[in-house]
Amino acid sequence: MSERSLPPPTLERLPVYVRVLDDLARHGETTASSSRVAELAGVAPAQVRKDLSRLGTYGTRGVGYDVADLAAHVRRALRLSDAHRVIVVGAGHLGQAVARYGGLRARGFEVVALTDVDPAVVGRSVDGVLVRHEDDLAEVVASTGATLAVLAVPPGAAQGTLDALAAAGVVSVLSFVPGRLTVPDGMAVRVVDVAAELQILSFYASSP
Amino acid sequence: MSERSLPPPTLERLPVYVRVLDDLARHGETTASSSRVAELAGVAPAQVRKDLSRLGTYGTRGVGYDVADLAAHVRRALRLSDAHRVIVVGAGHLGQAVARYGGLRARGFEVVALTDVDPAVVGRSVDGVLVRHEDDLAEVVASTGATLAVLAVPPGAAQGTLDALAAAGVVSVLSFVPGRLTVPDGMAVRVVDVAAELQILSFYASSP
Repeated sequence: MSERSLPPPTLERLPVYVRVLDDLARHGETTASSSRVAELAGVAPAQVRKDLSRLGTYGTRGVGYDVADLAAHVRRALRLSDAHRVIVVGAGHLGQAVARYGGLRARGFEVVALTDVDPAVVGRSVDGVLVRHEDDLAEVVASTGATLAVLAVPPGAAQGTLDALAAAGVVSVLSFVPGRLTVPDGMAVRVVDVAAELQILSFYASSP
Repeated sequence: MSERSLPPPTLERLPVYVRVLDDLARHGETTASSSRVAELAGVAPAQVRKDLSRLGTYGTRGVGYDVADLAAHVRRALRLSDAHRVIVVGAGHLGQAVARYGGLRARGFEVVALTDVDPAVVGRSVDGVLVRHEDDLAEVVASTGATLAVLAVPPGAAQGTLDALAAAGVVSVLSFVPGRLTVPDGMAVRVVDVAAELQILSFYASSP
């Protein structure tokens, strides 16, 4: 199976493996069994072996996987070898939280610009990153080389902004906006819906 | 199958169905086929029928589902009949973004308190909600009746705060903190890891 056609559940576990392998390396461990990776990742060992074999990687019997090799391999599968440039659209509390989020750079992402429509915010700097006007989106994307965007605008503005991002050449978007969006052709969108997450948790929070 | 043991993938689709049914009701539609619900939810029709049959609901052949009845039924399955009280731990940009997020109340959640450890923030009000000191967590949970919490603290503080929430009687937590947490017995934790979401998207953003 080519990496281009990794099944989404496998794809969604790869960042977990990267984190686990980086943790192991930090603790000086150079090899790890699939069971060890599985335990730290909270996944069944057979699933780990299956996921990694899809990437063309196999452990050595009795030894396991080489931690550094495997981490590099999973990173390549996720195309994390180069830092990805991220633009954050919407510089309210959420957009600023994403831009200031310390863990991004260590995990392969650089926030290269924020945009907003509020004149009180445009021109300011958030953690060293300039807030540009959203009208200049196409120019900002072109000049920064951003390929990923985080969508943190009000719901009413989301579809128009998504379309503008597609027109500007952004191909992947992480949206924090609830509700339905029509995804432009050729674009990948993942949605984090805080209320939906809480609704799922409320199932566990209540006695039936 | 009892609702207490709904499979997680079914459970995760229920908030989507609630949103779709509310949308249909707002547009004056009183009945809907499983195909229509499926289309709006982005799920296969057979999956919709299977999910809803797990809740003990079945459409009428040739008519479909009663939209209002079905919405009420799915809400009950999610135990959304009463407003759930939510405490937001960490009143930085992310915590404030969650507290100000307009969509929560409409979807059954009320943010009743924020907490923080920063004296510059404690005592302030965010969108009408007081920021209390995190040392008073147990008292805040007891006095507000919060059962859900949103964790928006720095990574180094996350485990201690999670344990304190468990000790205070909070049973479900939505965490925005990356990295591994040991989940206290009896607690349900869902993690939104922004960097992991971006890593998954980077797979789509790069040419192989």
